[in-house]
Amino acid sequence: MLTVYLSGEIHTDWREQIVDGAHGLDVRFHGPVTDHEASDDCGVAIMGAEDDKFWHDRKGAQLNAIRTRKGIEDADIVVVRFGDQYKQWNAAFDAGYAAALGKSLIILHGPDHAHALKEVDAAALAVAERPEQVVQMLRYVLSGELPG
Amino acid sequence: MLTVYLSGEIHTDWREQIVDGAHGLDVRFHGPVTDHEASDDCGVAIMGAEDDKFWHDRKGAQLNAIRTRKGIEDADIVVVRFGDQYKQWNAAFDAGYAAALGKSLIILHGPDHAHALKEVDAAALAVAERPEQVVQMLRYVLSGELPG
Amino acid sequence: MLTVYLSGEIHTDWREQIVDGAHGLDVRFHGPVTDHEASDDCGVAIMGAEDDKFWHDRKGAQLNAIRTRKGIEDADIVVVRFGDQYKQWNAAFDAGYAAALGKSLIILHGPDHAHALKEVDAAALAVAERPEQVVQMLRYVLSGELPG
Amino acid sequence: MLTVYLSGEIHTDWREQIVDGAHGLDVRFHGPVTDHEASDDCGVAIMGAEDDKFWHDRKGAQLNAIRTRKGIEDADIVVVRFGDQYKQWNAAFDAGYAAALGKSLIILHGPDHAHALKEVDAAALAVAERPEQVVQMLRYVLSGELPG
Amino acid sequence: MLTVYLSGEIHTDWREQIVDGAHGLDVRFHGPVTDHEASDDCGVAIMGAEDDKFWHDRKGAQLNAIRTRKGIEDADIVVVRFGDQYKQWNAAFDAGYAAALGKSLIILHGPDHAHALKEVDAAALAVAERPEQVVQMLRYVLSGELPG
Amino acid sequence: MLTVYLSGEIHTDWREQIVDGAHGLDVRFHGPVTDHEASDDCGVAIMGAEDDKFWHDRKGAQLNAIRTRKGIEDADIVVVRFGDQYKQWNAAFDAGYAAALGKSLIILHGPDHAHALKEVDAAALAVAERPEQVVQMLRYVLSGELPG
Amino acid sequence: MLTVYLSGEIHTDWREQIVDGAHGLDVRFHGPVTDHEASDDCGVAIMGAEDDKFWHDRKGAQLNAIRTRKGIEDADIVVVRFGDQYKQWNAAFDAGYAAALGKSLIILHGPDHAHALKEVDAAALAVAERPEQVVQMLRYVLSGELPG
Amino acid sequence: MLTVYLSGEIHTDWREQIVDGAHGLDVRFHGPVTDHEASDDCGVAIMGAEDDKFWHDRKGAQLNAIRTRKGIEDADIVVVRFGDQYKQWNAAFDAGYAAALGKSLIILHGPDHAHALKEVDAAALAVAERPEQVVQMLRYVLSGELPG
Repeated sequence: MLTVYLSGEIHTDWREQIVDGAHGLDVRFHGPVTDHEASDDCGVAIMGAEDDKFWHDRKGAQLNAIRTRKGIEDADIVVVRFGDQYKQWNAAFDAGYAAALGKSLIILHGPDHAHALKEVDAAALAVAERPEQVVQMLRYVLSGELPG
Repeated sequence: MLTVYLSGEIHTDWREQIVDGAHGLDVRFHGPVTDHEASDDCGVAIMGAEDDKFWHDRKGAQLNAIRTRKGIEDADIVVVRFGDQYKQWNAAFDAGYAAALGKSLIILHGPDHAHALKEVDAAALAVAERPEQVVQMLRYVLSGELPG
Repeated sequence: MLTVYLSGEIHTDWREQIVDGAHGLDVRFHGPVTDHEASDDCGVAIMGAEDDKFWHDRKGAQLNAIRTRKGIEDADIVVVRFGDQYKQWNAAFDAGYAAALGKSLIILHGPDHAHALKEVDAAALAVAERPEQVVQMLRYVLSGELPG
Repeated sequence: MLTVYLSGEIHTDWREQIVDGAHGLDVRFHGPVTDHEASDDCGVAIMGAEDDKFWHDRKGAQLNAIRTRKGIEDADIVVVRFGDQYKQWNAAFDAGYAAALGKSLIILHGPDHAHALKEVDAAALAVAERPEQVVQMLRYVLSGELPG
Repeated sequence: MLTVYLSGEIHTDWREQIVDGAHGLDVRFHGPVTDHEASDDCGVAIMGAEDDKFWHDRKGAQLNAIRTRKGIEDADIVVVRFGDQYKQWNAAFDAGYAAALGKSLIILHGPDHAHALKEVDAAALAVAERPEQVVQMLRYVLSGELPG
Repeated sequence: MLTVYLSGEIHTDWREQIVDGAHGLDVRFHGPVTDHEASDDCGVAIMGAEDDKFWHDRKGAQLNAIRTRKGIEDADIVVVRFGDQYKQWNAAFDAGYAAALGKSLIILHGPDHAHALKEVDAAALAVAERPEQVVQMLRYVLSGELPG
Repeated sequence: MLTVYLSGEIHTDWREQIVDGAHGLDVRFHGPVTDHEASDDCGVAIMGAEDDKFWHDRKGAQLNAIRTRKGIEDADIVVVRFGDQYKQWNAAFDAGYAAALGKSLIILHGPDHAHALKEVDAAALAVAERPEQVVQMLRYVLSGELPG
Repeated sequence: MLTVYLSGEIHTDWREQIVDGAHGLDVRFHGPVTDHEASDDCGVAIMGAEDDKFWHDRKGAQLNAIRTRKGIEDADIVVVRFGDQYKQWNAAFDAGYAAALGKSLIILHGPDHAHALKEVDAAALAVAERPEQVVQMLRYVLSGELPG
């Protein structure tokens, strides 16, 4: 059985594609809270409002870290997806965190980002462009079966 | 004595400001190769050319990783600077890597990036905007002396 | 599934409030022996009486440590509650122990103790005042669902 | 050579007594910033003022943590002194932190606190009442020489 | 649930007393092969005879180490029993091995051995004389229930 | 229950002999993908073709490493088989990797390779020539039962 | 440079033989306090008398553990000598402690103890009978030079 | 300063080429005993002859392991050279051992071995064919200076 953490981009359905594609495989998936608004506001919603946006963000980011760290620490494989928009520094942070823990890293991004992600890719055991490639990797790692 | 790794932006003189400001303090600084061209091409310059830019980058990034990982693993404090330009995913990757190793993190960035860096800041023990603040922190950590 | 250790104050029903509030969530709770007298006397009750109160206490504290250390080491999250009475140094000790192991810490205390607990709070990922906030955090971490 | 971290009470001269008594021994001492005001205000003095005392304290406590964690992690022996006043939760936190890292703990306190500190004492390799006893221990550990 | 490794003496029925006494408790017990002859000869029985008794013993001891190390590494609590006969250096070795891994140690021996075992006892969280005391400890650690 | 990783030679049926022989024992076996062609080509089959054989191999070897590392890290015992043909450097690499992680190593090879494998054998807890000996070891480690 | 801890028997001059024999080699030696009386009484001499011999011994053994643990943790090689007299359980405990930390173990004992020490020897990288053999090993490990 | 362990082939002068080429760089080199005969016979020369070649080899291999393990564990970078002759399983074992410890690996071999070494290369941060390339890497890692 493989435990897989899906980190990074939250604005496309790549997680669903992987989870659906891996239907029937012995894989357990985890990931961050992907509701952008809940993720941003969870800290103040539970622990009380902050006047200063910096501490508003801090409360939320630290509460989310409880989930993120457990997810990465429990994982065999951490998949990190970089999309086309935003800075996505938390995705790269997760990749570095996972790398330092010795997790198997799979990085998922389009060819335009290859140069900017070269240090992140260089820490990975696989780099892919499309979610179905991640599904193929999981199937191969579990069963030795290749596509086609 | 403190060992400090200065990660991140390579296009302004923030490292020099910190090293100069810390003159006389018992601090040993390390950092990446900051010559952009050498850093990009080191792999192929030593191990031979590659037709494919992806592997050209891979060779360089992995050779640079020898220096980066030693620098972070040996450090007491890892300072990560985010500038105004570029994706800087390697900076966020270093921050995550350092966090997972339990290093003391200091993040340095302008106020515009605060929201995008909230997960990175949340893993840090200090967040600053200007290099002289980092110098003040190092002085305080070593001697208890505050500015002013 | 989350494993949570509830450390600290044993004179109010805060543990029951959390356990009851978390009914239906995929959480497993652990905690110390909360029968004050049993906790104080367990060592001599099993291993034989001591003339000297210091060694009476030592025998009990070390036997309790078997439970406490397993509870903290097995936990994903360690919640530490500081009440209004007593020195509660064992609560702060547990918090430090959990922090050094990299556990996610949630600290629970009233506003009067905020300054005295600033170092403990600073090692935590969340600080709350009321048990139901802890329940809300556990629900959010597991499901992304916010209160209200 | 022994590296010793002196944690805890900052309102009496116990650190000076130990350092002076150990004159001539091959011991290197470290400890927190013991200027109470600087320790409380260091965060805002360097990183900017906060309206909310909670975040004022957080900034300071996290900056102090850079020094404290390095001091404890580098130490062979961590001595923790509990005085007669204040909650001193940071002292107990340091003791727990050091215990989880497997450091040799020496706890220093008056007999009145013995019962309240029983869990902390139970994690220690020695419990003493007076600073000169700590000096005698350091001399014995280094040279085998006993007092008298 | 507690996982307990029962190390040491193999010539009395102390293991059976503990296992029987703990009937109904949520404890999983492990221990070495207690058939003395099988334990001595297992290596050559499987891997082939040796002319030299030293290597005969080595083959057996290393094969037994596969079981012993897994047993200790998987345990929450390691109970080490010292009987009245033989050198029992393997029991003391197991105690040291468990101590270095941070396991909770319970040492079981008669009062005659107290001085000779003082370093081993000093690394333990409990020292007992009779197997039923170990059962009482396991019950207390699991449920908080004291005897009588 | 024992978890066993079967590393090394993929051209004879030694894995099947062990798995079949261990039928009825509480053992879970893992191993690499043993389809030679799939193992060689998995990287390019999923992530796209490479002109350069070196990077063709790299892609495959890193994808296989996801399975290999999980298998070794999860194992109690790593069995490494060296056959009569090929360099089998990956087998020796796995043995070194497992040794550094403190896994119990069993090395399986014919007498002709004894001198060349002396450093590998020296890191092992058992050295055997035939698969049925490994089965006998697993049975003995689990139950104390010897052959014959 | 090698750091070597010399554990075990304190009634013959084997430590002096090794230290003298290694004169001129780049080796730093450490060991326990070998003054038997000081070692037994150090705890009460510094921390105050105990009526009960058990706690008298505990105080001393825990104070000695500060030195012993540092010595073993700092060592590259731990040499453990078993003499002809006494139980020497602390020597076997040190061997187990060192083995669990992955230290290189050298065991020194006469042939009469070989069977009783088979589990301890099986964890070692070398077993010798005479101190000069240890000196020869240290010289060989440092310089590759063999005796004769 | 970099600490580098030079593992593998002992029949050509590649170590001398690297050490000479690195003259003036802040590098400390270590490696195995390269006198083939001394390395094979060291165990019996010091600890006494063995009738059985298997145990003759075992004694030597374990004594050499004291040096090898310290060398690898102390290293920042482990360079492993595979030559044209022999099985060189100890070289691959060292590479695996170093990889599991998270050391930066540089593999040195001719193009003929590329396919057979693909799993070893895949764990490395650099692969080179000639010793002077290793010197160039060390210079670049230390100073950022590239050849030419």
